[in-house]
Amino acid sequence: MKHFAFWISILLGFPSFCFAQQASTPPNIIVIFADDLGYGDLGVFGNPNIQTPNLDQMAFEGQKWTNFYVAASVCTPSRAGLLTGRLPIRSGMASSNKRVLFPDSKGGLPQSELTIARLLKSVGYQTAAIGKWHLGHLPSHRAIDHGFDSYFGIPFSNDMNRVESIEGLNWIDGQIQLAEEERYQAYNVPLMRNETVLEQPTDQRTLTKRYTEEAISQIKNRNGKPFFIYLAHSLPHIPLFRSEEFKGKSKAGIYGDVIEEIDWSVGQILQTLREEGIAENTLVVFTSDNGPWHIFKTQGGSAGPLRGAKGGTFEGGMREPTIFWWPGKLQRGVVMDMATTLDLLPTFANLSLAKLPQDRVYDGFDLTPLLIGTGKSGRETVFYYHGTEVFAVRWGNYKAHFFTQNEYGTQTAHPITVPPTEILSQKTEHEIPLLFNLAEDPGERLNIAEKHPEIIAHIRTILLAHKQSVVPVENQLEK
Amino acid sequence: MKHFAFWISILLGFPSFCFAQQASTPPNIIVIFADDLGYGDLGVFGNPNIQTPNLDQMAFEGQKWTNFYVAASVCTPSRAGLLTGRLPIRSGMASSNKRVLFPDSKGGLPQSELTIARLLKSVGYQTAAIGKWHLGHLPSHRAIDHGFDSYFGIPFSNDMNRVESIEGLNWIDGQIQLAEEERYQAYNVPLMRNETVLEQPTDQRTLTKRYTEEAISQIKNRNGKPFFIYLAHSLPHIPLFRSEEFKGKSKAGIYGDVIEEIDWSVGQILQTLREEGIAENTLVVFTSDNGPWHIFKTQGGSAGPLRGAKGGTFEGGMREPTIFWWPGKLQRGVVMDMATTLDLLPTFANLSLAKLPQDRVYDGFDLTPLLIGTGKSGRETVFYYHGTEVFAVRWGNYKAHFFTQNEYGTQTAHPITVPPTEILSQKTEHEIPLLFNLAEDPGERLNIAEKHPEIIAHIRTILLAHKQSVVPVENQLEK
Repeated sequence: MKHFAFWISILLGFPSFCFAQQASTPPNIIVIFADDLGYGDLGVFGNPNIQTPNLDQMAFEGQKWTNFYVAASVCTPSRAGLLTGRLPIRSGMASSNKRVLFPDSKGGLPQSELTIARLLKSVGYQTAAIGKWHLGHLPSHRAIDHGFDSYFGIPFSNDMNRVESIEGLNWIDGQIQLAEEERYQAYNVPLMRNETVLEQPTDQRTLTKRYTEEAISQIKNRNGKPFFIYLAHSLPHIPLFRSEEFKGKSKAGIYGDVIEEIDWSVGQILQTLREEGIAENTLVVFTSDNGPWHIFKTQGGSAGPLRGAKGGTFEGGMREPTIFWWPGKLQRGVVMDMATTLDLLPTFANLSLAKLPQDRVYDGFDLTPLLIGTGKSGRETVFYYHGTEVFAVRWGNYKAHFFTQNEYGTQTAHPITVPPTEILSQKTEHEIPLLFNLAEDPGERLNIAEKHPEIIAHIRTILLAHKQSVVPVENQLEK
Repeated sequence: MKHFAFWISILLGFPSFCFAQQASTPPNIIVIFADDLGYGDLGVFGNPNIQTPNLDQMAFEGQKWTNFYVAASVCTPSRAGLLTGRLPIRSGMASSNKRVLFPDSKGGLPQSELTIARLLKSVGYQTAAIGKWHLGHLPSHRAIDHGFDSYFGIPFSNDMNRVESIEGLNWIDGQIQLAEEERYQAYNVPLMRNETVLEQPTDQRTLTKRYTEEAISQIKNRNGKPFFIYLAHSLPHIPLFRSEEFKGKSKAGIYGDVIEEIDWSVGQILQTLREEGIAENTLVVFTSDNGPWHIFKTQGGSAGPLRGAKGGTFEGGMREPTIFWWPGKLQRGVVMDMATTLDLLPTFANLSLAKLPQDRVYDGFDLTPLLIGTGKSGRETVFYYHGTEVFAVRWGNYKAHFFTQNEYGTQTAHPITVPPTEILSQKTEHEIPLLFNLAEDPGERLNIAEKHPEIIAHIRTILLAHKQSVVPVENQLEK
């Protein structure tokens, strides 16, 4: 019924969208997922010092989404949300104690979950995961256990498995003080191809380049099948690395170099799609897993006009610079509707005519009407989870914060100039929630709670109903 | 000699740029100058809630400038700087006591100053000023006294000449609490055509539309001459008004509506140039006079990732979202070089082959090499004047603050959440200047003064030399 409605809407609302062609040739899908990229780190999202001509062009040719969220403000649960289309609490991939998986973790994404890869594989797609996985590195949790035909990348964050014994090692602010040529050796991170370790420690200086080559190879060797590529860059998560060609390229220091290399990578991929003649049958989505890691100062990114950063539930932690690209198919422009990474799975299901199982709760909405300009998605709310708790809820333009806490930075975009008393390192419950109108006040600076008790009351009702939809499952992060 | 070098550089570096055509047909020039527009208020500069498709497209077709400054962080001196190419202190158009002109002011831009209009008129241009003037409303100071063939607009700010006697008038936060239909009547601002008052009070609801019509009329009735149009919008300076068609159009409230109407206006003007077949011979520059007026909360704009606001010398007060457009002539892309409104006059002089007088100090640099992609401008410094004093100096990527003070807002982009102690309403001298690296830290949050005493010393030398170039003149604002 849902599929039927979708195709009808296409036929009625967007005649140039060719139903027959699409039905016989489902689109290729590429998700490019950066790590710790801030809302304000791309040119087209307002960065004054980092050149991102390829992403700017991609946005201009496609759709720039300015109210696009992730499922959590840290790595593991955010990725679980994207790949399953379900809030991480439903898969056991959220924890308030251990917010992400670590190299000694035993858990990971359970087999009971259905990933985008498995879903698309069921309708004939070739599927490849490239880059950081971070959803479990033991058997049954890995990419190849979750519907990906192939995997090339690192199993967890690039700052994990630290080697404390290296001579000259000096940690300041959580970062290694070592020449860049040697720095990668301080992180004993394996580079894997499927089940095989190719390299350990991974030479992270060429990772972006090698991921890009792998993506291009996947595009070229598609074996006559539609493909799904999940390219999850390891960067700009610290420690920062870039290849020789990008050293000093940016005006904005090493952080800028790293972003400019990711921009280059995007350009290479789009160019390959054009050269292969499949650009008009390929949907590419660019976004990131969570906001910038402010505590690393000039080696962390920027949330632009938004408040907050990675780890927190202010906008900067969970709103990401997002671009959709599909030449000739998308309604070009800036989309300001709310959407989240949870919406990707139902959208891809719809576009590929894959069937969703009926035995579970999904938290996403089909974005196709917004992509092709025929209507809205059904999304009216966003839940801002902090571990297993809902800290904030957005309903329409209003966002209520029931709790605030920032583990990985400060609460404002200006961490250094704000007095320490402003840094909320303890969880704070707001008896009267903070209330912001994000349309008029995207920086969350004008608390209007006193003026709108009725909105807070309505949001409380929404939250209550949501909580009732959540059933306890085994916690994978605390295993 | 300078002109010769310029044309040679064009011939050598940019062969498609036709020297002969340019020499015989100097380009039309349009400067669109918004009022109190923040760095973060346009889509292409990162605003998440305001739709500016015309300005986005203009930037994409032309050049987006991310390090472009004005001559002062308030209205009158900023305008004086743009039109004369000289720091306002040189023309007497700066004061630390009275920062702008008021309806009872006797002074204004002196006749000894040469405006862009007079300069271009000397080489055959038709010149028109449209919009807010604010450089003196008495004879000898008006637009028509300064080389403009025609003038249509209001002589000073749209919030001046307040009528305190209106029934029901209620001032809160400096803003009138009156229905929008009546609000304009509380400001007894005259709308002038040349020397004639057309309307008083001006119905501000249709001003943007009427300015646009006037600009289009000027373009169409160009009488076979090259033209210079200086279109200085009265908005988004408070009080905010928009025409009927834009009411509620934006997601971002009335402020967003106002910006979307200005964006529409830009679209109309560019479209007229295309329709008239003169787009490829017209340089259009879009910028604003100073940063957003934060104290008006959701009715003031956003500095995006920058710190500070109107009235201050942090970046948010003086860096403006700037776009150059000249189809087929400009090197498309994002320009991150420093430039200022002071550079417009020498640039226009160069492009029009007008001769600059040799009897005065100019503070600008020819931007042509940056426009056509053949090189750099000579600019290495920016002086941040606060009235008659230099509060800060940028040299390359480094900016030293010798004084800070914020009269019209707070020092951060988040005025409400920052404790009152952070609001610098008093002038503060920094014995050791605050030092920021704007390339890595555009938000001015990491003071690196202690690490770089040598840079501070060098900037002190630059400042000393600059001060020696300033000679006392009659103060026009205190008359």
